[in-house]
Amino acid sequence: MLPREKAAPIALPGARIAMKKTTSTTKTAPASTRDHLIEVGLELMRRHGYGATGLQEILHTAGVPKGSFYHHFGSKEEFTVAVIERYVMLEAEHCQEVLGNTRQAPLRRLRRYFEDLIQTAGQTAAIQGCLIGTLSLEVAASSALLQGRLSASFMHWQASIAMVLQEAVMKGDLPKSIRPDPLAGFLLNGWEGALLRSQADKSDAPLNDFLRYIFEELLAH
Amino acid sequence: MLPREKAAPIALPGARIAMKKTTSTTKTAPASTRDHLIEVGLELMRRHGYGATGLQEILHTAGVPKGSFYHHFGSKEEFTVAVIERYVMLEAEHCQEVLGNTRQAPLRRLRRYFEDLIQTAGQTAAIQGCLIGTLSLEVAASSALLQGRLSASFMHWQASIAMVLQEAVMKGDLPKSIRPDPLAGFLLNGWEGALLRSQADKSDAPLNDFLRYIFEELLAH
Repeated sequence: MLPREKAAPIALPGARIAMKKTTSTTKTAPASTRDHLIEVGLELMRRHGYGATGLQEILHTAGVPKGSFYHHFGSKEEFTVAVIERYVMLEAEHCQEVLGNTRQAPLRRLRRYFEDLIQTAGQTAAIQGCLIGTLSLEVAASSALLQGRLSASFMHWQASIAMVLQEAVMKGDLPKSIRPDPLAGFLLNGWEGALLRSQADKSDAPLNDFLRYIFEELLAH
Repeated sequence: MLPREKAAPIALPGARIAMKKTTSTTKTAPASTRDHLIEVGLELMRRHGYGATGLQEILHTAGVPKGSFYHHFGSKEEFTVAVIERYVMLEAEHCQEVLGNTRQAPLRRLRRYFEDLIQTAGQTAAIQGCLIGTLSLEVAASSALLQGRLSASFMHWQASIAMVLQEAVMKGDLPKSIRPDPLAGFLLNGWEGALLRSQADKSDAPLNDFLRYIFEELLAH
């Protein structure tokens, strides 16, 4: 249904980014000014969102003059597209690593993947939450450009989850009647909602409950 | 498990507020300056979030001087508590009306309730989304005061859904093994995630898919 070669970039909360956090502040020789700006912007926007991350703060934190910023990016909106792309790219590594590990059964892999995300996006993580989710509520309504990128990020992420569900169907671990793509969407959106609630409650309980209902109820039937 | 007399204020996306939208702008004799400020703040924050709703914009839209604002509210944060309370109160009416209609079977009532919410918080609504969800991602991390109110709003909402699930268990429509409160949390958080995705995708499909998986899969077993 979703051929493996289409398993393109995936947007996911936390994993690699959290681990790279200290690197971003201690790094002394960034690959390029553009890369450095994106790295700084990604950390600030993950922490504070779009509106609360001012251009001046980005420039000050990055130690880059305004002219240099506008040499690389036409606007803050365009810069944010690059930040989203970086987030998607970094998170895709984790997704490939866990979901692509075919030595494990597909549903075991999928559960392990979400368990990892609790560590990297939940309340004990260096930065909580998911940039794609946060920006979806904050800017999708006001920026068609960013809305398109956010929607595409979710679509790719969903496709990767759908592939694992499809594999589970083929191996007889899920009934043939399931439709992997909408089910993957339901899982992904449910994860985003659980993450939202974990931020309201300052607790990982909604994330653990999410895993339980998905893997011990919905997919166990 | 959750006695009916505890069915306190409930925070829900959209219904009554969307219908009251035109009233808020045409109203010429608000009950009080405080009420009028809250009404204006609620509409602005539902449309633009917390950060993008400036105090000046609130004052200008309400036609109220700054001194009067500070007569009623110590800060924008304190004002936002009142806005959340108003949202919760207005939405509780819809919740009581639909979920409290015991002439309908509990799960039918619960489905009808979410179907209504698609109309009032989905892409065809006057204002899309849920204020509680949006503020949870935007301000819960930075304001302990607002975080507490948001968490309490979700808790009350969850309790109302849990009561309906409990009733379904008692009537034999759900197995006795289910635990109404965490299941209500899973439903509520899943709804918030579907709403987030509907904003990223500019589509009601995630909301309709949510209903299908909950009512035709999870609760149908």
